[in-house]
Amino acid sequence: MAVRVAVAGASGYAGGEVLRLLLAHPEAEIGALTGNSNAGQRLGALQPHLLPLADRVLTETTPEALAGHDVVFLALPHGQSAAVAEQLGPDVLVVDMGADFRLADPADWETFYGSPHAGTWPYGLPELPGARTALEGSRRIAVPGCYPTAVTLALFPAYAAGLARPEAVIVAASGTSGAGKAPKPHLLGSEVMGSMAPYGVGGGHRHTPEMIQNLSGVAGERVAVSFTPTLAPMPRGILATCSAAAEEGVTAQSLRTAYEKAYAEEPFVHLLPEGQWPATASVHGSNAVSVQVAYDAAVDRIIAISAIDNLTKGTAGGAVQSMNIALGLPETTGLSTIGVAP
Amino acid sequence: MAVRVAVAGASGYAGGEVLRLLLAHPEAEIGALTGNSNAGQRLGALQPHLLPLADRVLTETTPEALAGHDVVFLALPHGQSAAVAEQLGPDVLVVDMGADFRLADPADWETFYGSPHAGTWPYGLPELPGARTALEGSRRIAVPGCYPTAVTLALFPAYAAGLARPEAVIVAASGTSGAGKAPKPHLLGSEVMGSMAPYGVGGGHRHTPEMIQNLSGVAGERVAVSFTPTLAPMPRGILATCSAAAEEGVTAQSLRTAYEKAYAEEPFVHLLPEGQWPATASVHGSNAVSVQVAYDAAVDRIIAISAIDNLTKGTAGGAVQSMNIALGLPETTGLSTIGVAP
Amino acid sequence: MAVRVAVAGASGYAGGEVLRLLLAHPEAEIGALTGNSNAGQRLGALQPHLLPLADRVLTETTPEALAGHDVVFLALPHGQSAAVAEQLGPDVLVVDMGADFRLADPADWETFYGSPHAGTWPYGLPELPGARTALEGSRRIAVPGCYPTAVTLALFPAYAAGLARPEAVIVAASGTSGAGKAPKPHLLGSEVMGSMAPYGVGGGHRHTPEMIQNLSGVAGERVAVSFTPTLAPMPRGILATCSAAAEEGVTAQSLRTAYEKAYAEEPFVHLLPEGQWPATASVHGSNAVSVQVAYDAAVDRIIAISAIDNLTKGTAGGAVQSMNIALGLPETTGLSTIGVAP
Amino acid sequence: MAVRVAVAGASGYAGGEVLRLLLAHPEAEIGALTGNSNAGQRLGALQPHLLPLADRVLTETTPEALAGHDVVFLALPHGQSAAVAEQLGPDVLVVDMGADFRLADPADWETFYGSPHAGTWPYGLPELPGARTALEGSRRIAVPGCYPTAVTLALFPAYAAGLARPEAVIVAASGTSGAGKAPKPHLLGSEVMGSMAPYGVGGGHRHTPEMIQNLSGVAGERVAVSFTPTLAPMPRGILATCSAAAEEGVTAQSLRTAYEKAYAEEPFVHLLPEGQWPATASVHGSNAVSVQVAYDAAVDRIIAISAIDNLTKGTAGGAVQSMNIALGLPETTGLSTIGVAP
Repeated sequence: MAVRVAVAGASGYAGGEVLRLLLAHPEAEIGALTGNSNAGQRLGALQPHLLPLADRVLTETTPEALAGHDVVFLALPHGQSAAVAEQLGPDVLVVDMGADFRLADPADWETFYGSPHAGTWPYGLPELPGARTALEGSRRIAVPGCYPTAVTLALFPAYAAGLARPEAVIVAASGTSGAGKAPKPHLLGSEVMGSMAPYGVGGGHRHTPEMIQNLSGVAGERVAVSFTPTLAPMPRGILATCSAAAEEGVTAQSLRTAYEKAYAEEPFVHLLPEGQWPATASVHGSNAVSVQVAYDAAVDRIIAISAIDNLTKGTAGGAVQSMNIALGLPETTGLSTIGVAP
Repeated sequence: MAVRVAVAGASGYAGGEVLRLLLAHPEAEIGALTGNSNAGQRLGALQPHLLPLADRVLTETTPEALAGHDVVFLALPHGQSAAVAEQLGPDVLVVDMGADFRLADPADWETFYGSPHAGTWPYGLPELPGARTALEGSRRIAVPGCYPTAVTLALFPAYAAGLARPEAVIVAASGTSGAGKAPKPHLLGSEVMGSMAPYGVGGGHRHTPEMIQNLSGVAGERVAVSFTPTLAPMPRGILATCSAAAEEGVTAQSLRTAYEKAYAEEPFVHLLPEGQWPATASVHGSNAVSVQVAYDAAVDRIIAISAIDNLTKGTAGGAVQSMNIALGLPETTGLSTIGVAP
Repeated sequence: MAVRVAVAGASGYAGGEVLRLLLAHPEAEIGALTGNSNAGQRLGALQPHLLPLADRVLTETTPEALAGHDVVFLALPHGQSAAVAEQLGPDVLVVDMGADFRLADPADWETFYGSPHAGTWPYGLPELPGARTALEGSRRIAVPGCYPTAVTLALFPAYAAGLARPEAVIVAASGTSGAGKAPKPHLLGSEVMGSMAPYGVGGGHRHTPEMIQNLSGVAGERVAVSFTPTLAPMPRGILATCSAAAEEGVTAQSLRTAYEKAYAEEPFVHLLPEGQWPATASVHGSNAVSVQVAYDAAVDRIIAISAIDNLTKGTAGGAVQSMNIALGLPETTGLSTIGVAP
Repeated sequence: MAVRVAVAGASGYAGGEVLRLLLAHPEAEIGALTGNSNAGQRLGALQPHLLPLADRVLTETTPEALAGHDVVFLALPHGQSAAVAEQLGPDVLVVDMGADFRLADPADWETFYGSPHAGTWPYGLPELPGARTALEGSRRIAVPGCYPTAVTLALFPAYAAGLARPEAVIVAASGTSGAGKAPKPHLLGSEVMGSMAPYGVGGGHRHTPEMIQNLSGVAGERVAVSFTPTLAPMPRGILATCSAAAEEGVTAQSLRTAYEKAYAEEPFVHLLPEGQWPATASVHGSNAVSVQVAYDAAVDRIIAISAIDNLTKGTAGGAVQSMNIALGLPETTGLSTIGVAP
């Protein structure tokens, strides 16, 4: 089976990562690479780590350029995906790595993005109960945000098992690639090295409604989420530290059992042995998710922590995993659980 | 006024930092420098950044070496300070940068350290209500832990004003110098660069009871604390992200007023303008504390964040500040609020 | 073809990297993993990024443990490989990632290592003229040092073409994993982050005679090498900046032609387009080598720069590449030229 | 003595650093702060580490704004300093931290900058033979480039003593702040963390003629310089690794003696004890220069290495040091040799 794939937005970090993964994917054949402001440039100048594609040249993101592919990955600024998808027709698998089709509630979208809601596509987090089935055979996929991926996988088993109260407090640290490749002063190496810096504090981050949507769906009631993202001095990785008050009767053992059950069959999520905690370095460049959970009896709270690579499992790896499911390929095709460390 | 100062444990990070600050202190005269395993070595080989002291040689930590000083800073492993302090006599100002005399409740000490409680000394966090007065004229000072310094200064104004419920959730990121200079595999540069890693999860970190003690004292009731520390890929700095459910009727304005009131006269704590959040780079090498607070109406929680340099305000700067108070010097003598950035 | 492979010294950085690569190698079957001081521990505790091997347990490095494999990789302290190899018999392919069998001249060995010379094995740098042939069918391989790999590939084409005078000046920056996993104070994250630090200055580094051996062999006369290594604040990567006075008549064009010729058929060495310079991030985690060369007319010198991943092409990737040749597999089997960036 | 000081270009890295130093300078009184694109903004938003100046507001760089000061520091793009200086009159001390007045030879300027030469001002590297005298009482100062500062101080004693041949090979690693605060893709944290990357290879860097000028002046003959700068993953610091073939009869002892003589009376340059090598972390935030030199007998070359903070001694610290001399203040006023480490 040869799957012909195009990438719209190939010059950015999400586009580069999906290409990195597709190069190792035995069924993928890399077709058009587009990127408006960089059209005409060699990929070798923009993504020098993708040596096998160094001589490929970016074209404009036009319907003609994207035509004739089985799968089109979109790594575009939000608000642009709907128009491109429409032109591609219903038989092309469109995998949107942007935000446009993640949220089910138009009101949430409008509150956080201030523009009309484009719609809702099957959600590319196969580990979330119900999501995998919805992806099978689908020709549209909304890839989750990087923070919601990490947070949902850290917490949903506790909600699925009825162990956590519906108020989660989350502090997550992300590598700087999560902020993209457009140069801004606060993202300069001089500014970020040696610094931890919060942003979007107090509920303003656009990934918040997506976390609420995921956890509430599992919990069967609305889960309130206090979410504080921080920028960490590293290029990749998210460490999500999540906690919630425990429902009555929770024990360390009931927690562990819930997580073991949730992840027993998952190829990418690794519940670590008791006492070992996730670290972002271990999943660098891989599609693995490291998860650990503890019960803090002194405060009667559940603490769940996950580590992912924000560009791999948090974006492009999740996208390829969902593509595999949609196309009927083995879910792990072309994806690795081996980190590049140290 | 010439204050003759000795430092016991001059080869580690706390000892090095107190020397860095004392070199800029107009009243301090640096006397004996001791360090057992490194006795006999030039300071220039151990602390190459302290160029003016490069030719000083470390001696053993003996009563004779420490005799004849007005102030002795102790940067020793916990459990060793009491014996040294006893030999120094009651007129010498002993500033303990270790944990031995921080906790008031012997049961807390024994639970977290597993050894008999040495006692309680005036607590070197002048900003904490009541603490400054207790430091005046004192000849014993227990310097707070680095995390408790950051967390207490982020949260106590909310508790002092009766705005926060007594359950705080705290996630803090620390630079690696907080883990000390003794070489361990997980502290190697190869391991920490590019990685965020939690530790002591679930209530086990020894700084937890100290936070509870500080916040409870201000709140007038026991404050439960869920504390998760993480190791960040930077040498210095703590970013403490703290939250608590709001008491009824809290508004963004009442919060801001409470913090403005708490810090109006504090020389080292800077409540940032609304909308600007602390970052560790801004306080690198300085005794300043950056604080910001917000009210997240969607979850009815207070989010308070502080940034400090763990070695300066979090250890040696707090120690010098408290020394100044104890000796009757202006509190800011020799201390700076100017960070070294970028 | 299933190749059964053992790794002696599986807990260190070289051992971990060779396992990372073997996990992606379609012909390799990972057998015994040994490591003396860590025998009895789960690999998941020592190499948490190698998730598929997390439950494997290290055993002692004994002849029994290593028996029954087709290939044994040695990642041992120097001086130990000869004894292990002897016990393995002549039919087992022994790939030594240590220094013991790299140098041809016993006097060089004794000068730099101060112990008796163990011998010389076929040299695992296939790109070096003559080396590939010697590796074919061999059952003993001496993997080059990381610096000599980077330096030799940057400079040998200039010597092979007779364009450079026999005095090379080399300054190389290495990530900290090159210094190994044994914890030492100067390798702590607190020490290395934010710092560039030279070591082994003035000709003392043990990789110097290996560079001389490689370049002299190509040049047909002894090449003097001034080599200064520096430790850079990054976990992986070597950037080797090499220069030499030009022989008469050298031009930018003749240089470029020499390098194009040397690397036209090499699958792992990429001569970058003119004007683009190597950076270590681009080859992070890959077996690729980025090379560029320029002629500085103002000083009549050749400047050649290479970037490699010290653990991959510089150690374990070079080892697997040479193993492939020795076993008659396609040379690139299981190896990638795609870096993990950003 | 109160010296009223203005800073033109206060929002960039050089401007921020000179303000950091002036805040600690006992004679300086900080007056106008200007910055065209950021005029009207609070300094607290632009330089959050300068807490004591947080509420100061930037104005446009106009003659009126800069009038009425004793000293004006210029941190402007090259080509703009001459016009500003003219308007200030001959009695104001103008300290140019840009390149405009560093080069004596108009042809050098035109070759490297492609614009007409503005002139030559007394050169702000007091340690260079003859420079200190020229600075005394001067009302114009050209602050050296950061790389020429590091390189000149590493090498000139060898040339002054006639020990080195007039062909120097230099490889220097710089922290990213040397590239300024204007956001560019290759300076993003995501790009620079984990990477060593050369630039300006082959003689193209604009600091090259300045190094040649300095070394040639001392040597009494033209010194050819091969200079390769590299960008290192750290915010501050330059490590300059310099070498040159030795003149006949050079010994380790004659070299050491030459350096001891050159630096015996210098307050900021520290010749390290034999066997200890400079590292940038040790001089972080300080005006100190660490220097070491060795003779490599095997290749008959001198290796001299220096470490500076590119923003302090390499820019703003050198500027303040030269200002002190010009104003007749003690040269070390307000400057420190104590690094902020780890």
